[in-house]
Amino acid sequence: MLNKLTAEFIGTFWLVFGGCGSAILAATFPELGIGFLGVAFAFGLSVLTMAYAVGHISGGHFNPAVSLGLLIGGRMQSRELLPYWAAQLAGAIAASLVLFIIASGNDTFAPESFASNGYGDLSPGEFNMVSALIIEIVLTAFFLLIILGATSKQAPKGFAPIAIGLSLTLIHLISIPVTNTSVNPARSTGVALFAETAALGQLWLFWLAPLLGAALGAMTWKVFLGKD
Amino acid sequence: MLNKLTAEFIGTFWLVFGGCGSAILAATFPELGIGFLGVAFAFGLSVLTMAYAVGHISGGHFNPAVSLGLLIGGRMQSRELLPYWAAQLAGAIAASLVLFIIASGNDTFAPESFASNGYGDLSPGEFNMVSALIIEIVLTAFFLLIILGATSKQAPKGFAPIAIGLSLTLIHLISIPVTNTSVNPARSTGVALFAETAALGQLWLFWLAPLLGAALGAMTWKVFLGKD
Amino acid sequence: MLNKLTAEFIGTFWLVFGGCGSAILAATFPELGIGFLGVAFAFGLSVLTMAYAVGHISGGHFNPAVSLGLLIGGRMQSRELLPYWAAQLAGAIAASLVLFIIASGNDTFAPESFASNGYGDLSPGEFNMVSALIIEIVLTAFFLLIILGATSKQAPKGFAPIAIGLSLTLIHLISIPVTNTSVNPARSTGVALFAETAALGQLWLFWLAPLLGAALGAMTWKVFLGKD
Amino acid sequence: MLNKLTAEFIGTFWLVFGGCGSAILAATFPELGIGFLGVAFAFGLSVLTMAYAVGHISGGHFNPAVSLGLLIGGRMQSRELLPYWAAQLAGAIAASLVLFIIASGNDTFAPESFASNGYGDLSPGEFNMVSALIIEIVLTAFFLLIILGATSKQAPKGFAPIAIGLSLTLIHLISIPVTNTSVNPARSTGVALFAETAALGQLWLFWLAPLLGAALGAMTWKVFLGKD
Repeated sequence: MLNKLTAEFIGTFWLVFGGCGSAILAATFPELGIGFLGVAFAFGLSVLTMAYAVGHISGGHFNPAVSLGLLIGGRMQSRELLPYWAAQLAGAIAASLVLFIIASGNDTFAPESFASNGYGDLSPGEFNMVSALIIEIVLTAFFLLIILGATSKQAPKGFAPIAIGLSLTLIHLISIPVTNTSVNPARSTGVALFAETAALGQLWLFWLAPLLGAALGAMTWKVFLGKD
Repeated sequence: MLNKLTAEFIGTFWLVFGGCGSAILAATFPELGIGFLGVAFAFGLSVLTMAYAVGHISGGHFNPAVSLGLLIGGRMQSRELLPYWAAQLAGAIAASLVLFIIASGNDTFAPESFASNGYGDLSPGEFNMVSALIIEIVLTAFFLLIILGATSKQAPKGFAPIAIGLSLTLIHLISIPVTNTSVNPARSTGVALFAETAALGQLWLFWLAPLLGAALGAMTWKVFLGKD
Repeated sequence: MLNKLTAEFIGTFWLVFGGCGSAILAATFPELGIGFLGVAFAFGLSVLTMAYAVGHISGGHFNPAVSLGLLIGGRMQSRELLPYWAAQLAGAIAASLVLFIIASGNDTFAPESFASNGYGDLSPGEFNMVSALIIEIVLTAFFLLIILGATSKQAPKGFAPIAIGLSLTLIHLISIPVTNTSVNPARSTGVALFAETAALGQLWLFWLAPLLGAALGAMTWKVFLGKD
Repeated sequence: MLNKLTAEFIGTFWLVFGGCGSAILAATFPELGIGFLGVAFAFGLSVLTMAYAVGHISGGHFNPAVSLGLLIGGRMQSRELLPYWAAQLAGAIAASLVLFIIASGNDTFAPESFASNGYGDLSPGEFNMVSALIIEIVLTAFFLLIILGATSKQAPKGFAPIAIGLSLTLIHLISIPVTNTSVNPARSTGVALFAETAALGQLWLFWLAPLLGAALGAMTWKVFLGKD
């Protein structure tokens, strides 16, 4: 169990350090910055790479909503859920702290939103709360459908990390302007602790919507699609 | 059969929600927008991810032209064609509706072309109808050649979703300026219903050309290349 | 043999239509254009996708320099070299013609360089002939090293199209500013026929350097690295 | 042993020629340049492609820090470490020299930083030494975790070059603004020799931090995660 929790801690650290780190450090660099496209690849590649590295140890969730969905989908034991959540949260917070220290080593640094998620005034494109709720629910539901489908017995062996990682890239390509893209309560929590905006006050949505979406996706899989 | 149709509904929903959604929500975001390159990856990754997730259930067509081509190529039964088309259309329209609701949660939203396809005045680069016809026929023909080749018995096992998904990325890298890229009548129909331009009046081309191209590609495969 | 030549014709058509097509139609689109990065992915994905589709038929060369290198590397019979070259040239020229027709369907179209290769005044970044010679030789040599290595018996099965296709992406990421990137005499010849610049007068370099580089790479493989 | 050292020489040449070459020649090209995103893909694809081509010969390190980490992780014999380091350094220096010659074939060429690594005044985003130390240590540690994990017996076979190569892309997406990204002492040394800035005087950090990070990552793997 210790190696599973270490794997989840390390994987979620990498997801937040890579995804949010690229957003904070590299997205808006003058002329050469990586933009939303680069951030989308960073999030996706963090999951793709860690799923190959430690997926065979812990399953490679790195996300409380994914763990819930896999529990509902019958792929995880319920007594592991809370320890997984704790390891994921700890990894996300640790990554955010290290990012904050690194980013501070620059005279012009101000945390601002610190890559946190938000709606209304805190949405990159100023989308309202209803849009934020819908898109986070829909995207997390499809994320779980892809995870459950790509790891099912009928799917080609070994390719699931590519499908799952790149689905997170796709999710970010769609929704960064709306909510800065969460689909992951741990990722949202980690950076919100360091934001100088009111991101913490909107954190409830980025637990509620991903968890709801994950449950919806997992149930859709079980009822309509899954055989295993 | 229900699980096959559900898979086609979900996969086509994802293709339109991901591809057209990224175009509508993220392509033109000031400074950081993902541009045509990001949209090209979004379309390709929507197919790559869903082909791994549900390709083993329905074959992973997500596109009426692909279904026709696979029928001609001898990989699908004719009695399944119309139900597949219906599921694909329903998925594309449902995705367009959800996208419309999400995009509306922004004070500055106007549907405009809503990522629909077009030629002449409705072509992003103002290409005429002949160019639109030729490019959609050629690209759909090659799309089918790649689908039939990468899923043939001689091809390496498990890699077809990568080849097929990334061929859709390539197709968009070439042709977004010409027609906004269809090669998929369901995708064209879904968003055209919500466009405030005259996209519906040009929809005929985005059924005719992809279906023609798919037939051409499938027949080329059968006559010159295929052994299975 | 007919199916092999058809596969080479189709694959080389796709390489030129995809790679040069994206450069001509989409690279410089205002604000949203795909730039050199998008063109680099287009070339790489054209090879990745066709190598999965028809690589099992013809070997998936799509390039006279690759065919020469594989002949030297002992992977191809010498009597097939000239027919392969003819099919590749025919595919490249056909793709250039179709591209020319499509691009003409725009009031503002002027062929200009038509994505042709060049040095000196015809180099995108005005690099001289010596730089052009060196970079084309070096890049084609490494291209062949990767092709021979990734398809050798010791390499993981099924992954060669990914390695080879993405190496062509990398090659373009380095060298578009220098020569507009050839490493492929057929690709250079096809579009040079339609350029309104003096590209045809510089075509000799884009036969000489890739063929020399391919020979160098193949011999390096045989002498220092290869066991099969 | 000669073929192993040739493989490491060629692989490290390719990493520097591809990664640093794209940065020097293509990143800042007006309008169409590939930016940090393109450079990040170039570095990652150089490793992905060479790991498929010669990874089965030498293990595909191309990086003194990786060789140290694999030694600590028990995957390499200690008597091979120094020869590997020598081959890697030679490859990096040779690539830098060829790049310098090619880049010189342009009237406006000035070496400037020549894609070298740095902190403080030599950091692209002017990050200080502490930030540079931390980020290089953290990123190299995770690089080794991914390498050891993706090549462990439990991981899916054949996919390690994808995971490892794309993790280098991710590493660059995060950290180019901070140090121009090293995680590889050979890459740092090669180009520093040709920079007209004070990069050589900061080279110590880009040996110390990657080696420290690699050791940390390998020990973390052994203690908490690895079974083989």
